[in-house]
Amino acid sequence: MARLNDHYLKLAAGYLFPEIGRRMDAFKQANPTADVIKLGIGDVVLPLPSAVRDAMHAAIDEMATPEGFHGYGPSEGYAFLRRAIAENDFGAHGVRVDPDEIYVSDGSKCDSGNIQEIFAPDASLAVTDPVYPVYVDTNVMTGRTGPADGSGRYEGIEYLPCTEESGFLPALPERPVDLVYLCSPNNPTGTVAPKEELRKWVDWARAHESILLFDAAYERFISEDHLPHSIFEIDGARECAIEFRSFSKTAGFTGIRCAYIVIPKELRGKASDGSSLPVSQLWSRRTNTKFNGISYPVQRGAEAIYSEGGRQEVQSHIDYYMTNARLILDGLQRLGFKTFGGVNAPYVWLETPTGLDSWQFFDALLEKANVVGTPGSGFGSCGEGYFRLSAFGLREQVEEALDRIKKGFG
Amino acid sequence: MARLNDHYLKLAAGYLFPEIGRRMDAFKQANPTADVIKLGIGDVVLPLPSAVRDAMHAAIDEMATPEGFHGYGPSEGYAFLRRAIAENDFGAHGVRVDPDEIYVSDGSKCDSGNIQEIFAPDASLAVTDPVYPVYVDTNVMTGRTGPADGSGRYEGIEYLPCTEESGFLPALPERPVDLVYLCSPNNPTGTVAPKEELRKWVDWARAHESILLFDAAYERFISEDHLPHSIFEIDGARECAIEFRSFSKTAGFTGIRCAYIVIPKELRGKASDGSSLPVSQLWSRRTNTKFNGISYPVQRGAEAIYSEGGRQEVQSHIDYYMTNARLILDGLQRLGFKTFGGVNAPYVWLETPTGLDSWQFFDALLEKANVVGTPGSGFGSCGEGYFRLSAFGLREQVEEALDRIKKGFG
Repeated sequence: MARLNDHYLKLAAGYLFPEIGRRMDAFKQANPTADVIKLGIGDVVLPLPSAVRDAMHAAIDEMATPEGFHGYGPSEGYAFLRRAIAENDFGAHGVRVDPDEIYVSDGSKCDSGNIQEIFAPDASLAVTDPVYPVYVDTNVMTGRTGPADGSGRYEGIEYLPCTEESGFLPALPERPVDLVYLCSPNNPTGTVAPKEELRKWVDWARAHESILLFDAAYERFISEDHLPHSIFEIDGARECAIEFRSFSKTAGFTGIRCAYIVIPKELRGKASDGSSLPVSQLWSRRTNTKFNGISYPVQRGAEAIYSEGGRQEVQSHIDYYMTNARLILDGLQRLGFKTFGGVNAPYVWLETPTGLDSWQFFDALLEKANVVGTPGSGFGSCGEGYFRLSAFGLREQVEEALDRIKKGFG
Repeated sequence: MARLNDHYLKLAAGYLFPEIGRRMDAFKQANPTADVIKLGIGDVVLPLPSAVRDAMHAAIDEMATPEGFHGYGPSEGYAFLRRAIAENDFGAHGVRVDPDEIYVSDGSKCDSGNIQEIFAPDASLAVTDPVYPVYVDTNVMTGRTGPADGSGRYEGIEYLPCTEESGFLPALPERPVDLVYLCSPNNPTGTVAPKEELRKWVDWARAHESILLFDAAYERFISEDHLPHSIFEIDGARECAIEFRSFSKTAGFTGIRCAYIVIPKELRGKASDGSSLPVSQLWSRRTNTKFNGISYPVQRGAEAIYSEGGRQEVQSHIDYYMTNARLILDGLQRLGFKTFGGVNAPYVWLETPTGLDSWQFFDALLEKANVVGTPGSGFGSCGEGYFRLSAFGLREQVEEALDRIKKGFG
């Protein structure tokens, strides 16, 4: 019988979000009239910006004409979009990123899952704990780890605890590793690494010739001016980092699908014969062999985010969600919850009430308040005793959820 | 320095199509006024069907309203599309495929490149020669092969020659393998495997517990009634095959991106402890971990292909391209070329003129006729001395190309 990749069988449990969906569905079946409010999965709710809508309409009309038809596009993305990204997301903020260092994709989940393919099959890695599960699971699937222990940690990965004591910032790894996954603003804790922290990481990565995989999918939600939006604001990062960005949460693209990664030309890795070569060369080869670029109308839609109108709509989305975040923070704090994040990130991280672990609080919240959140332990053992609430909800839902939490837990 | 996946360095050359693009660009730079006709890369040219256009417009308008907004969809595809596919592409032809056996994706290149990830890191494989390069390259990148020899064949892969003598149909492998890649209608030769041929493969695969990866991306171009469109027309195939289908060439989706694969529930594979489990379980896990589904408007557009209007437009596209194929076949035959394919596939496979190998003919055709095709040797050593012309061109371009070929080679 054909042999399967049984590294998959090491995966400790179902991917977190389908498991949440499963419990939610079971609850709905048992309570068909309950009006469940979802502040769990982190999916946006505001409608597609009209600038995006109009640009997509125009692109589709274009494609329905003989002259305007677009077939296969460049796998790395159209030049018009790569230029718009380079200018607006980096150049305008004084950060150098060239258009040909940008690789357009169908999502940050895909990018952060696929990136490990271009590194050595036995590459060593460090991740934070708690951590976005995709970083870990995709490495498990590729066979870079042993089995998971009782706490869900996989043999062979260095876990960097992010605790209240450390301000939810990870310490440097104890030994050199090939790859470190960092996420700032952090999913799930909502923490942002300040410049001096990123400087520490860049220095360490350069000293140890490691590569930082820097997930900045939530950078647009940073409200405090002194905090860095990009790892490339740090001198030397071009020699040691890859950055992930997404349109999902800023422009309502979770159902449209568009993101990108930045691989600077200076970033090099090592082959087993000791020679070095540009990391972008392998990513480009992967992209051309396993991917065909994203839908032309979607790329035109993404470009429209940078128009005057698009920019204003995106800002109003962000303001809306961050007002939600403030309401959640205030409401929870008034109820005596200990909270973190929520100021520079659309996620509020809270300590679960005494006596309830993360999944117990998940169930209690669902039962008592009909509100769905995300158990902190789903992100790693250091997330046990914590819980994530997402600010991605309609205002009236957020207010209603807080009322119900007050009744159930006040 | 972070260690790279240097299996990539075994890849013999750039992926075929970028190399063609490179030579074409060089020619255009040297001959800026030349009007180059592209019958190489196999990209469609007819505009997006109006049924698709209208459905995508409606979906985008829907998403721009609070009530109609769609965020994250199911990673495997929306139920409405999986149902439409199951009913129209299979049920209507008397073939049983259930909606939950269909996994919607962003392209057959992606699917046929990604599928190998769920099989054992040392899974053995057989491919035809010539072969669509993605099947081979993605396995090389994962480390399932040794280096390439002088003819471009990789150590550890069993190559199944498809020659004129065998009617371009492969013989069965000499030893059992985990995976066999088959493509019918074949890219590049245009050959279709008749039912008795597929029956032979299904029997062999079941006897040896192999899995057939059956690429049917071109099935809609079959014109002869007795030929099979799906491997699942063969009894027993549900226990040994995965099928790939695409909307790229039928509905002008090369720039829109939508395809799907079928993994029957009965298909099982083996873990290293000897236990067996459903192949779909691993694919589903991969899909949920590394992918987020395709754009909602794209899925609505794909669904519209099955409407009355969509169906007619798709058929008219196919008729148009197959008329091109007949013109190419006729024209080349009149010039004394030996040709194959082109009757049940949008590709014409021809023998290069005496004295010219595949790339030499590529260069000669570009120089003398300003026509771009695809060198057979780019698909494998058995493709040497052959050449692929694609029927995906505008009628006037195809006619003009044939005129020029007549002048240059008549």
